[in-house]
Amino acid sequence: MAKGKLRSIAVMTGGGDCPGLNAVIRAVAKTAINKYGLDVWGIQDGYLGLIEDRMELLSYDDVSNILTRGGTILGTSNIANPFRFSVKVGNKPQSKDVSSNCVKALKARGVDALICIGGDGTMASAAKFAKKGLVVMGVPKTIDNDLYGTDVTFGFNTAVTTATEAIDKIHTTASSHHRVMIVEVMGRYTGWIALYSGVASGADVILIPEIPYRLRKVCEYAVGRSRRGRRFSIVVVSEGALEKHGRMVVKRRISSSPDPIRLGGIGNKLAADINKETGLECRAVTLGHVQRGGTPSPYDRALATSFGHAAVELLAEGVKNRLVVLKGGEISSIALSRVAGKIKKVPRNHRLIKAGLAIGTSFGT
Amino acid sequence: MAKGKLRSIAVMTGGGDCPGLNAVIRAVAKTAINKYGLDVWGIQDGYLGLIEDRMELLSYDDVSNILTRGGTILGTSNIANPFRFSVKVGNKPQSKDVSSNCVKALKARGVDALICIGGDGTMASAAKFAKKGLVVMGVPKTIDNDLYGTDVTFGFNTAVTTATEAIDKIHTTASSHHRVMIVEVMGRYTGWIALYSGVASGADVILIPEIPYRLRKVCEYAVGRSRRGRRFSIVVVSEGALEKHGRMVVKRRISSSPDPIRLGGIGNKLAADINKETGLECRAVTLGHVQRGGTPSPYDRALATSFGHAAVELLAEGVKNRLVVLKGGEISSIALSRVAGKIKKVPRNHRLIKAGLAIGTSFGT
Amino acid sequence: MAKGKLRSIAVMTGGGDCPGLNAVIRAVAKTAINKYGLDVWGIQDGYLGLIEDRMELLSYDDVSNILTRGGTILGTSNIANPFRFSVKVGNKPQSKDVSSNCVKALKARGVDALICIGGDGTMASAAKFAKKGLVVMGVPKTIDNDLYGTDVTFGFNTAVTTATEAIDKIHTTASSHHRVMIVEVMGRYTGWIALYSGVASGADVILIPEIPYRLRKVCEYAVGRSRRGRRFSIVVVSEGALEKHGRMVVKRRISSSPDPIRLGGIGNKLAADINKETGLECRAVTLGHVQRGGTPSPYDRALATSFGHAAVELLAEGVKNRLVVLKGGEISSIALSRVAGKIKKVPRNHRLIKAGLAIGTSFGT
Amino acid sequence: MAKGKLRSIAVMTGGGDCPGLNAVIRAVAKTAINKYGLDVWGIQDGYLGLIEDRMELLSYDDVSNILTRGGTILGTSNIANPFRFSVKVGNKPQSKDVSSNCVKALKARGVDALICIGGDGTMASAAKFAKKGLVVMGVPKTIDNDLYGTDVTFGFNTAVTTATEAIDKIHTTASSHHRVMIVEVMGRYTGWIALYSGVASGADVILIPEIPYRLRKVCEYAVGRSRRGRRFSIVVVSEGALEKHGRMVVKRRISSSPDPIRLGGIGNKLAADINKETGLECRAVTLGHVQRGGTPSPYDRALATSFGHAAVELLAEGVKNRLVVLKGGEISSIALSRVAGKIKKVPRNHRLIKAGLAIGTSFGT
Repeated sequence: MAKGKLRSIAVMTGGGDCPGLNAVIRAVAKTAINKYGLDVWGIQDGYLGLIEDRMELLSYDDVSNILTRGGTILGTSNIANPFRFSVKVGNKPQSKDVSSNCVKALKARGVDALICIGGDGTMASAAKFAKKGLVVMGVPKTIDNDLYGTDVTFGFNTAVTTATEAIDKIHTTASSHHRVMIVEVMGRYTGWIALYSGVASGADVILIPEIPYRLRKVCEYAVGRSRRGRRFSIVVVSEGALEKHGRMVVKRRISSSPDPIRLGGIGNKLAADINKETGLECRAVTLGHVQRGGTPSPYDRALATSFGHAAVELLAEGVKNRLVVLKGGEISSIALSRVAGKIKKVPRNHRLIKAGLAIGTSFGT
Repeated sequence: MAKGKLRSIAVMTGGGDCPGLNAVIRAVAKTAINKYGLDVWGIQDGYLGLIEDRMELLSYDDVSNILTRGGTILGTSNIANPFRFSVKVGNKPQSKDVSSNCVKALKARGVDALICIGGDGTMASAAKFAKKGLVVMGVPKTIDNDLYGTDVTFGFNTAVTTATEAIDKIHTTASSHHRVMIVEVMGRYTGWIALYSGVASGADVILIPEIPYRLRKVCEYAVGRSRRGRRFSIVVVSEGALEKHGRMVVKRRISSSPDPIRLGGIGNKLAADINKETGLECRAVTLGHVQRGGTPSPYDRALATSFGHAAVELLAEGVKNRLVVLKGGEISSIALSRVAGKIKKVPRNHRLIKAGLAIGTSFGT
Repeated sequence: MAKGKLRSIAVMTGGGDCPGLNAVIRAVAKTAINKYGLDVWGIQDGYLGLIEDRMELLSYDDVSNILTRGGTILGTSNIANPFRFSVKVGNKPQSKDVSSNCVKALKARGVDALICIGGDGTMASAAKFAKKGLVVMGVPKTIDNDLYGTDVTFGFNTAVTTATEAIDKIHTTASSHHRVMIVEVMGRYTGWIALYSGVASGADVILIPEIPYRLRKVCEYAVGRSRRGRRFSIVVVSEGALEKHGRMVVKRRISSSPDPIRLGGIGNKLAADINKETGLECRAVTLGHVQRGGTPSPYDRALATSFGHAAVELLAEGVKNRLVVLKGGEISSIALSRVAGKIKKVPRNHRLIKAGLAIGTSFGT
Repeated sequence: MAKGKLRSIAVMTGGGDCPGLNAVIRAVAKTAINKYGLDVWGIQDGYLGLIEDRMELLSYDDVSNILTRGGTILGTSNIANPFRFSVKVGNKPQSKDVSSNCVKALKARGVDALICIGGDGTMASAAKFAKKGLVVMGVPKTIDNDLYGTDVTFGFNTAVTTATEAIDKIHTTASSHHRVMIVEVMGRYTGWIALYSGVASGADVILIPEIPYRLRKVCEYAVGRSRRGRRFSIVVVSEGALEKHGRMVVKRRISSSPDPIRLGGIGNKLAADINKETGLECRAVTLGHVQRGGTPSPYDRALATSFGHAAVELLAEGVKNRLVVLKGGEISSIALSRVAGKIKKVPRNHRLIKAGLAIGTSFGT
């Protein structure tokens, strides 16, 4: 797209819910309408709406008063992949590439560029659309904070705040009884939420996927506290935390479906394991979806506004096929192709791990 | 105890954690010290501390700055029953009545009266102590709000607030996806928390033990909403909710242990059931212990302060062996013997049930 | 109106903002539409919209997702009085009775009954409309909780919560410095907010209009605390608190305009007075409009839902010209004519005053 | 100090209150005790306690359970400057350099290094102590976020959160009436809090010291919104915002005393000015001390923990006379001498100003 030729953009939200989506949509639409006089199409329900050609022009009023609202006014969908869309042929489900239809639908409406707000999966498809000639701009979204290329994603601060406030509440209960309280927080592949909420709430033990834990170490720690007269221990554990036996990390199947009906995740398992090993009374709480919802924190509202604004500015400057990121406090961008399939893990020498170890927190090692 | 002879009291907290316990302790101690110049003994860890003779004099400073703190500075215990205390004789566990030792321990310290802050179980023992000649005063405590004789118990408002805020967060996630979200809240025998938090959060379906639900009705309701274009349904369910088949209420064993490690309560069951019947995507969240903890709400702080103050005033007036209650906005009291073994259920014609039905909420019937 | 003949109602919100207004509107409209199949007209901007004949039919969708929102979707106005409406004749402002036009406008749309959600002033006009033959039903609204005839009004719990949370924050600052912190809360004529938030936050001094304070007593108390090694004092004061000199209560003009631009209310005055008398460092914070806004608390959402539901039920039963109230936990109603011009003051022997005095709080006497 | 010789440190908090102080103290003490086995002296009431030789050894228990508490367990003082301490000689107040006594007092207790948690003024004195040979380490503290050398200071995120939540509440009130609501937030010399909370709350106008505003522009903006049918405008203004007349910035004396009893700051002035120019109804709210207090946000707890931990680690490594800072997400340090007298202003091209302008926010220009 030649610089200055932008007349119409579309915007969509993909993947799981995340506080701040509406703040991005608002900033995208207001910048586009207010500063550049663009048409802004809102695509419904993520890639599913794009596939089914469901989109509507967003007015200034449509995006007023949505800054503080959780969820997304556009709707989202976890499953739809335009490059491998599930369709039924006769009675048999088949995968079909419907991406060309998507591109046509956008062209038919005169859309010059597509802003995709989403995580890993959404960006993978966005990168493929870019290869097909569509002008795309990605905005990183995951409460897990594990998207490669950006220091931080919006939604993460809200999730940490929600988790910390829950652990704060559990803290008071734990301290009234003699108990080990286990709190399972989100983080399938990385421990960002557990690390930040664990340090912020003064957890005694923090278990994250990046540092497989030894049950024995966790138990010794809890028993040691009990012996020193501490009445309770708080364990914060990522849903994707892994146990280590000898030199072997125990593989645990985490359902590929993003939000299964849980009949017992790592939190419950740990409670049973620790109780069995130590005899200490244990309770597990799984925070679950509460972490994904609600009004975004002020931090996330500001960050999401920056991201949404930058996405339009970059397109207006003729930049394309990149992901908007925050690096060292400044907005910049990175090629979508460089992001694909990567994940940002908690480094072993992260300042919060070092601080945690120094003040006596156990990481199960 | 003859009126005016009060010189020393003791105070203890029993049973599960509940926001506002410290506010009661503070009001008891400050009233006793400041207004009546009494000694105030704080018994540690509920009846267990009484049995083991662990108690300390509380100073004014000990109870300063604890009004807003969750938990109890005295500690609590769920299990100890002075009239059937578990002891080991040789290797065999036996039940033993150690209540006389408790009375002696209090007498030895010159304690004239014992204030018991607790629920059902705590009051049952308190009533037995009264029969043994101890002067006792009960303060009702349960987040479930189901203690007989009082309009409301402290902790309930905080639990409802915590539950409602969590459902608010889930609401935004539900509305972004096409989903049925099930939120399991506390309430083993009664539906107070589910009713209040369900109405307060605008839940679509509210299921409580007092009104056994029919799965078919719940499913029809959710499907009906989906057909009318509503993207989602929120179901709030008490942990003790019961299903009805034909004329039969399905019995469900709720573990007698108060807070078992849950491997799938009613919330998860409902999610599976509804998904199976309707094909709708379902997710369950079990709020669990978060509801018991945290800073008490301002409402509960004021109520707990009233209760603690009244307990001492009643003792000072020579009243004994009663439970402090709130009736029609005023503090009064009721004989401990009248409370024993009773429970306050949600009446079928409760104003919130009527309002809920009128505005289109389903109670699964 | 004969029972059962109700076909169409109108609803309006009058006076200052109050958390829970939307919850009432929602319950009114949903009950009317869902249960009785009525038309529901939403009048805009209070009586002003009625005078100017601005009203629209409310659909089910219009009142969906507004339960948790602060403010009122209908708008409100402080000033418009249909019986003494300010109009300009030539260049001169005159008062004119335009109430008959209002009645006609409602008749023209076939409105059978008008639900007025408001405070003192709104109810005074509602009572006059009743005398003109209009069927009206009042719903009490004031964050100040001083409306006669009801135990509690919605919005009050939220205001107390907001005030208490602010005082909690100030508490931590006060305790780090050696200071007297004065917090001015709402309450022009009554001390409900100050009393509840003061007790809930553990304020050292609570000053309310019902108990004129002596500056000397407040100063002695603060100095006494300082001498006993307490680093700080928190004073919570109603905006309408009154000072007493000898036997005389000092009259203070509170602007008749409901929310003047404040250049120094009682909070600032007290800070200056106490500093002058004692030399103690003083700081004042005036919470102001923050108390009127925001998401209603769960308590208020449930209460407002009950009120809105009951207003329609009463009309459906043929009841008219009454105010919906909560008495002893139950919904009932009281004749509008009995409410006019009355105010519900904090009684001197209120349980929170007694508790406050017992635990050592000063009321400035 | 030669590396590895550290045996004893002291820690103090200076200047105004700030959420997160206790989290720093806790991390300092736990790291020092747990990892290095040091003695940790807690100095009371800032430099005042140092001057008066009031300090006590901190135990592990002393710093347990303080992470979430606002304020500082050590106390603070705004005024004491060891290099110009106010003493009375006869009846005349004189300035005296008592810094040598301070150094002696620390030496007498065997203190090897002093950790100063504070802002501008505290660091100025710390730098002077360094010149006198004392080993010092600074930890930056200001809710205003304007300390030079660090990307962010702890307390800022909490202050922004508090301010944003208050503006959110005011938003709902504003939208129910036709009004201009002015919210004055902290920021004597810089607009960080106003900028972040203004963007986060979707304020219509944001006025900060770095961009002197023209009243005419603010009024035009508010009137324009009113004409376009927007019922209200929200103006967020730093307490130190400046007005421009022609080319001249109007000088405004901000009291040198840090927290004067305010009889009308910029918020009230703006309300009066806008009302006079436009006739629009205006209301002002001054948030004041509420912004300084309360439980630190999870973000600030984690940051403060990092800072406290790093301060001890740097001393243990033999580093001295520096300020711990956060740069690009990593902890580092900067020479105290480089910080003195500097302030970090909001740059005109800050990403939030650019985003704000693009989405239609006015900065009064």
